[in-house]
Amino acid sequence: MTTVGIDAIEIRTGKLQLDLAETFAPAQDEDPGKYTKGLGLHVSSFPDVYEDIVTMAANAAHRLMERKGLTPDDIGRIDVATESAFDNSKPVSTYVAGCLEQVYDDDFHHANKGERKFACIAGTQSLDDAYNWIRAGRNRGRKALVIATDTALYARDDPGEATQGAGAVAMIVDENPDFVELSTDQGFGSADETDFLKPNQQFPSVDGKRSMKVYLARMREAMEDLERAGVDLHPDDFALIPFHTPFPGMVRKAAALGYRHVCRDTDVELTLAEEIGRQPRREEFKTQEQFFDAIEEYTDALTETERYEDWYADTIEPTLEIAREVGNWYTGSVHVARVAGLKHALEHDRDLTGAQLLVASYGSGAQAEIHAETVADGWKAEIEALNVDDQLDRRYDISFAEYERIHDVHNHDTDDYADVEELTTPSEEFVFDGWGRMGERKYRYVR
Amino acid sequence: MTTVGIDAIEIRTGKLQLDLAETFAPAQDEDPGKYTKGLGLHVSSFPDVYEDIVTMAANAAHRLMERKGLTPDDIGRIDVATESAFDNSKPVSTYVAGCLEQVYDDDFHHANKGERKFACIAGTQSLDDAYNWIRAGRNRGRKALVIATDTALYARDDPGEATQGAGAVAMIVDENPDFVELSTDQGFGSADETDFLKPNQQFPSVDGKRSMKVYLARMREAMEDLERAGVDLHPDDFALIPFHTPFPGMVRKAAALGYRHVCRDTDVELTLAEEIGRQPRREEFKTQEQFFDAIEEYTDALTETERYEDWYADTIEPTLEIAREVGNWYTGSVHVARVAGLKHALEHDRDLTGAQLLVASYGSGAQAEIHAETVADGWKAEIEALNVDDQLDRRYDISFAEYERIHDVHNHDTDDYADVEELTTPSEEFVFDGWGRMGERKYRYVR
Repeated sequence: MTTVGIDAIEIRTGKLQLDLAETFAPAQDEDPGKYTKGLGLHVSSFPDVYEDIVTMAANAAHRLMERKGLTPDDIGRIDVATESAFDNSKPVSTYVAGCLEQVYDDDFHHANKGERKFACIAGTQSLDDAYNWIRAGRNRGRKALVIATDTALYARDDPGEATQGAGAVAMIVDENPDFVELSTDQGFGSADETDFLKPNQQFPSVDGKRSMKVYLARMREAMEDLERAGVDLHPDDFALIPFHTPFPGMVRKAAALGYRHVCRDTDVELTLAEEIGRQPRREEFKTQEQFFDAIEEYTDALTETERYEDWYADTIEPTLEIAREVGNWYTGSVHVARVAGLKHALEHDRDLTGAQLLVASYGSGAQAEIHAETVADGWKAEIEALNVDDQLDRRYDISFAEYERIHDVHNHDTDDYADVEELTTPSEEFVFDGWGRMGERKYRYVR
Repeated sequence: MTTVGIDAIEIRTGKLQLDLAETFAPAQDEDPGKYTKGLGLHVSSFPDVYEDIVTMAANAAHRLMERKGLTPDDIGRIDVATESAFDNSKPVSTYVAGCLEQVYDDDFHHANKGERKFACIAGTQSLDDAYNWIRAGRNRGRKALVIATDTALYARDDPGEATQGAGAVAMIVDENPDFVELSTDQGFGSADETDFLKPNQQFPSVDGKRSMKVYLARMREAMEDLERAGVDLHPDDFALIPFHTPFPGMVRKAAALGYRHVCRDTDVELTLAEEIGRQPRREEFKTQEQFFDAIEEYTDALTETERYEDWYADTIEPTLEIAREVGNWYTGSVHVARVAGLKHALEHDRDLTGAQLLVASYGSGAQAEIHAETVADGWKAEIEALNVDDQLDRRYDISFAEYERIHDVHNHDTDDYADVEELTTPSEEFVFDGWGRMGERKYRYVR
């Protein structure tokens, strides 16, 4: 059977950066280690005055189409995932198509455009929709353009402020993909949760402690559901496990839980038992509380074993390398993690062609999806074609005073751009160009 | 090959009604004919104080599941389409699942939940996604629950105020469906348009004249795209053509354009030529303006022919019968039109088993999708099981003063429910139950 998956991927970061240790921590009168060690974050990306979810999405898609030699006629579907939308009716995908039509001769009038929302998991859901569309035989030879784009801002002085970020990930989904092959295997864990939400507001209301618990609980359910679907989750079977990364510290916890879960009743548990004992079982304890304490103690010991440390260093750590430098990109986060892992592999001469990845997506509210992917033959060329290092290096490093202004510019309640100077100079890219008479945002291409 | 389509459908109206001729017109000092003849609308549905997009969606889904003997274990996917969302991150589908879990023993933790937004077309897009999910082999024997739910309000004194409405349509998508079979054939017409949008606001900004033009232009593109996909659109081949119905007058225009388009170069054009001449062709006219004038004249003559009037009475008019009594339900509108047409057929002993429907969906911003469906063997039983007439008859008829209060209750900027009395008494249904500590909306089931 023909394979279907991600043919190519492109990452577009906001063009500003806030250094958490050098700039943010001193202004908050905090120890830099709170961010760099606790959260595992060093830098946040922000959009300049003329950037937003549409420009980042369109600029990512444009480079992707140019690189793969595509024109609008080749694209049958444009799906945008975001939780930073600025319109309650008109989808971001129409704006993105409008931008791209400024630089191509043909148009996207034949393309089915959509927008999906479910906190940070909607990017993966859009990828799933595109896969299903091709598998259902509805693509008429065309490819899907899937874009995850967000400006992840918190209210000023919210505990989440240090985890902000902004960027877009664009992907082409196609038959016989060059990058990774998807399959029908998926596991879901989903519940009606009040951990992180934005009730008629731009910035989130967050219950931080609950949010971390819910992330772990939904991930465990998704693993169990994937096992019910017949997928064996032995930890040595996956070369990389990209997680949704609100901040690397969250992934550290999720990885330990996942490893413990999938090792139960395997050779790995037996081998480790000599060193740290077998995993605690509920029936061995009088109370739930005693059991949880034992589980926590076992997990701490587990993460200090050489076997776990080696696994973590190979399978998880590489997926966090970009997140540390850009912050949380919401819908794009797990797709940035996949790229980071494969980029690390390429840079360390690890040949992953044909290797399995386990991709663990998550959205608050709340849902986890875990699915397996196979690295395709062309992955090295796709990773080599990225310019993500260049983009990160070229970011303008903002002062705290500049950060305060930029936060206001992107706050829908205070977004008067008139007297805020841009900090970088746009070139060969789509930029925000003011509002139209019906309150719509307008865009133009700067040569 | 197994067929995939809509197995069952349920309609839930808001429990209040505003009579446009008796109540709204006098208050506006307008001739009732402006609404009943011009727009083709008689009554708008509104939600009572304790109703909203979640309660209407959950109540529709609950009756549907009860009627089909389903429990959460049978459902693998819940997609909600809306342009009335009250949260920028957490999807309405999680709230709906939370409601349903109050009345079932099992839960939806295994179900992939989502939310789609693209003005009024997202309901059909969610149906497409569910079809694709099953065709892709990812459903693991489970069905999809697809819900289109909206409270379509305009700002007070906006020209759109008379076209308001509120209701939900819930559908089960499954293999071997009882109601209608879907296929891979779809035509799209899609462009980046500024006709109707909600930039960071609940109520729409509308350019009414442009919106009507864009509706027709995208519909024509979608017809042409469907023809390119190899579907022959002879007007006598379709038993019913349900359109997205912002108001019946819009469909009157769209039907005439569609009929003229598909009759060109067919036996129908030739037969009609004796009476009204052949259709004008561009090359016969010196200017575009002269050509458009001729087209308009031809279309007026066409709609007065007996052949067209018979076709319109059989194929279009029945699909408008519910819309006249409920107003615009945005994402649910075209699905209400399908039900109205089939209900009329059942009531007039027209056997449509195996007949073809052409379904014409539309969303501002803007996109049209036209697709063909086949009426399945069980359609009569599905239509008989609906209680839509009962629901419409039982609505509480509000005075203009009550309308003004209800509009405020559902206005996100003035939604202080504390001192507004409900006008009906809830029974055996989900109701809104106030806000939680993080600003989330809460719900409970009233026995």
